[in-house]
Amino acid sequence: VCVRAGLAKAITLIESELPSDKPFADALLGKCIPCSEGAIFIGVTGVPGVGKSTLLNVMGMELIHAGHRVAVLAIDPSSARTKGSIMGDKTRMDELSQHPNAFVRPSPTSGILGGVSRRTREACILCAAAGYDHIFIETVGVGQNELEIDQLADITLLLLLAGAGDELQGIKRGIMEAADVMAINKVDGENLRTGSQAAAQLRNALALLPPRDSGSRAQVFTCSALEKEQVQALTDHLQLLHANLHEKGVIAARRKKRMVNWMAQRIHDSLLAQLNNVKVREHITEIEQHVFAGQLNPINAADQVLEFMRTNPEIPRAEPE
Amino acid sequence: VCVRAGLAKAITLIESELPSDKPFADALLGKCIPCSEGAIFIGVTGVPGVGKSTLLNVMGMELIHAGHRVAVLAIDPSSARTKGSIMGDKTRMDELSQHPNAFVRPSPTSGILGGVSRRTREACILCAAAGYDHIFIETVGVGQNELEIDQLADITLLLLLAGAGDELQGIKRGIMEAADVMAINKVDGENLRTGSQAAAQLRNALALLPPRDSGSRAQVFTCSALEKEQVQALTDHLQLLHANLHEKGVIAARRKKRMVNWMAQRIHDSLLAQLNNVKVREHITEIEQHVFAGQLNPINAADQVLEFMRTNPEIPRAEPE
Repeated sequence: VCVRAGLAKAITLIESELPSDKPFADALLGKCIPCSEGAIFIGVTGVPGVGKSTLLNVMGMELIHAGHRVAVLAIDPSSARTKGSIMGDKTRMDELSQHPNAFVRPSPTSGILGGVSRRTREACILCAAAGYDHIFIETVGVGQNELEIDQLADITLLLLLAGAGDELQGIKRGIMEAADVMAINKVDGENLRTGSQAAAQLRNALALLPPRDSGSRAQVFTCSALEKEQVQALTDHLQLLHANLHEKGVIAARRKKRMVNWMAQRIHDSLLAQLNNVKVREHITEIEQHVFAGQLNPINAADQVLEFMRTNPEIPRAEPE
Repeated sequence: VCVRAGLAKAITLIESELPSDKPFADALLGKCIPCSEGAIFIGVTGVPGVGKSTLLNVMGMELIHAGHRVAVLAIDPSSARTKGSIMGDKTRMDELSQHPNAFVRPSPTSGILGGVSRRTREACILCAAAGYDHIFIETVGVGQNELEIDQLADITLLLLLAGAGDELQGIKRGIMEAADVMAINKVDGENLRTGSQAAAQLRNALALLPPRDSGSRAQVFTCSALEKEQVQALTDHLQLLHANLHEKGVIAARRKKRMVNWMAQRIHDSLLAQLNNVKVREHITEIEQHVFAGQLNPINAADQVLEFMRTNPEIPRAEPE
């Protein structure tokens, strides 16, 4: 509990938008990076309703019983309108989140600034440094996020549903290509037959794709998180695959790419953080009134704001402080 | 055909990353904004496989037969790895895209810079100025995009599939709240009963949500795009709703918000465009080598790049030129 409380506070610090918190957050992260290398980072992606949380609850408890410490960071595409979190389904990780050897945290995405990955990436580092050896990053894998998940994790698991061709058709090629392992979930009861059919279909489809950077193609599993069927086999495979890719140097290569990507993201965020300057914000608010009144088009309005930023030397150029 | 070719070239111009194209693109957009006000902008969202393209093909042809000119801009979350477009399903709009009174174009999202909405927003303006009176913006509505679609369109249609509770559970509250109209598609043959059940269930769920800014809740339709069943009713409702919201001033209010949002996006894009400067790019490449070699952590690396940008006055401060 003590580690968890400290970790939660550390994550709150790195998530802070306050310029005065930034030096502390950066120093903490710098210290934690070298201590994070021993952990296994696993991305879990799939459409809403596919059973990611239920699976992670079962998988996490199995790992804990085998002596591991498990963290789950769930990327939560919050509703911009309600400003609320929509992860009511975190109750599906009740058992895991209450276990002292687990740490479960939704990682809200905060609109335009920063986006999905920076905060989650940094939270992962802190979790690993805090001694969690299996870090799961859970994300909705439709749209843009799937492109980000393999920039966050060492290996990626794509969860799918059995069923008609629709579900398979819905899988975008980008997600297929980013997955190291695939599992068809909810293969229980009446779905046993359609589940194994879907698995066969998927294996055929995968054979047509180029192999990943690891040189091999994703293995396809069927499981039922609800019935706790075949989850252990999936967990074993994930661990084995990670060990195998680690030995081959693939994990190290992916991590290096992640570090370069992280740098690029911090540069982006800092450039945009100039917009948080009080004077700039006041100017934008004023210009917005003219746009809202229809007196100024958005193109000229943006140019005026940029000109203001350029000609006011007291505004920090590329730093939030 | 002549209008279409010119429009396609104009869109290519505004999509250009070349600094020398920017003044022309901006001038063109500035001219087009006042001419775009007569068009109806309709967002169409839903998970992959729900039948958005098939529906738009039918809906578009119906509108054309009623004397309208129809544009469809499809936001395409491209695979970052293959760099290729995954809109093979654009063949589902074959009939529409070949009609002289239609203009169909995928609007690729280009990774981090700009994101989904700027280019699509600007392409919409050009389509409207070119005389298309119904502009549809098609997007995958899971994840972040749903938050953007109501910043692009006057009204938003959410397409759903009938079926078990899974699909409904998968709808995030943010999407529900952003939709002005909902339609359950593929309600044909064996799905007729489950379709009307799903519609009833959805109406009950909607009653629990706050009404939109229009003061009313989304109406729920069932249809079959494949069988062309009930699509006309849906089209009629969309037109009627738009006229109604226009009269109430809701459309004007939403458009003003879009303009302010557009301005903010152009400011963001310009700030990030500094990274395209040749000297900055060279410096980043150099620093990346150190990160890749493990000699420098991403935090310190980003700070070094920002410091370089700050201390080199010849680098334009907030302009791509």
